[in-house]
Amino acid sequence: MSTVKELIDFYVILVEPKYGGNIGAVARAMMNFDFDKLYLINPCKIDDECYARAMHASKIIDEAKIFPSFEEGIKNIDYLVATSSIETKTDKRHLRNPVILKDFVERVFDTEGKVGLVFGREDYGLYNKEIAACDTMLRIPSSDKYLSLNLSHAVSIVLYSIYVKRAFTPRERRHIGKVEKVKLYEFFSDLLEEINYPKHKKENTEIMFRRIMGRAMPSTWEYHTLMGVISRTLEKINKNQKK
Amino acid sequence: MSTVKELIDFYVILVEPKYGGNIGAVARAMMNFDFDKLYLINPCKIDDECYARAMHASKIIDEAKIFPSFEEGIKNIDYLVATSSIETKTDKRHLRNPVILKDFVERVFDTEGKVGLVFGREDYGLYNKEIAACDTMLRIPSSDKYLSLNLSHAVSIVLYSIYVKRAFTPRERRHIGKVEKVKLYEFFSDLLEEINYPKHKKENTEIMFRRIMGRAMPSTWEYHTLMGVISRTLEKINKNQKK
Repeated sequence: MSTVKELIDFYVILVEPKYGGNIGAVARAMMNFDFDKLYLINPCKIDDECYARAMHASKIIDEAKIFPSFEEGIKNIDYLVATSSIETKTDKRHLRNPVILKDFVERVFDTEGKVGLVFGREDYGLYNKEIAACDTMLRIPSSDKYLSLNLSHAVSIVLYSIYVKRAFTPRERRHIGKVEKVKLYEFFSDLLEEINYPKHKKENTEIMFRRIMGRAMPSTWEYHTLMGVISRTLEKINKNQKK
Repeated sequence: MSTVKELIDFYVILVEPKYGGNIGAVARAMMNFDFDKLYLINPCKIDDECYARAMHASKIIDEAKIFPSFEEGIKNIDYLVATSSIETKTDKRHLRNPVILKDFVERVFDTEGKVGLVFGREDYGLYNKEIAACDTMLRIPSSDKYLSLNLSHAVSIVLYSIYVKRAFTPRERRHIGKVEKVKLYEFFSDLLEEINYPKHKKENTEIMFRRIMGRAMPSTWEYHTLMGVISRTLEKINKNQKK
């Protein structure tokens, strides 16, 4: 919650993207996950398709910086992350020896400065010399059957992962409502009593009920509604008994 | 790694997709993350753009099943997950009260059976009645500034999250038990009837109950036990009424 967030600045860097539509789709994903700095290295034309797919994120396209070469584009970035879904099996393994996305996300917020997330061409990805210029290589785990992700999908998955890490630590949760929870369990226990639930099964069933609720993590309001249902049921039983 | 994996079968269900390109992009993402069952509800034409964007995943397109209506498409699915990036602030809060993607992924492998991941239209998403027919609603966290994700991006992020969970943690799981689930909901509805639950609140409370159960994903045994409690309660009320 602090100012920790502000210590890090992310840049999405697309290297020689070939289709305007992909740039647009990337811009949309950036806005979806609160990223706004886009660098384009020697890109294709910014066409109508680009704006069409950017939807409400046209501002990111308008403010994107265009560089003629990779070297120019990365000049002011403190920490460069090359992304790829491909893991090499060649002797170039040091070059491509990757960190897995989820591990990267765990650690990236320990740093500060300008972090560049570098995504390669739709067909060839990043060249070895570009990867070599980066500080680390990030791999998005994917199936052996088809490793290579669509460019904007790769960007979406990386930005989503960072967004979630940023948004949920410290974590956002439903409020548990401890008082309501205890009350609901009492009501449930009373209900079992009223319906002459077999004694030897009672404790086990109470625990099961707590486990189900524990997994569901109801909101305070949901607890109230469930309590309402059970208390009406108890009233009904008691009223009938007095007849 | 055992056969545990095979106990759960995922179906990607696209409701009325409007662009062939999006269907293709979804198919590619599916193959990237080891999913192969695609259901299309009343889709647009499967055009060249669809195959172009599917790249190596054309087989998934060829084997996709097409259904004329939502009801037809979901018939054989045990557990339905509606996906959305939108969180409602209206009084329909039960309907859309969502589980967050990362929490869903933590729990889904505790179950077994056919799990349908339902994605709505590019423009309108899912209609309320479609969401109501689902067991749970899944939210992909995204920025308040621009909540709505591109369809294939949403699919990619969900499938990636499941893929990573599957790839990195083998687990023990619960059976969903569709029959038991439906029966339990009926029992709960009967109970509300018997206790003269206010008519105007009834539907909302039923949906809330399904949402709580949907989040908790009870085992067959847990369903049976809960049904036992409710059926005993109903008997008790009825016996008392006859006195």
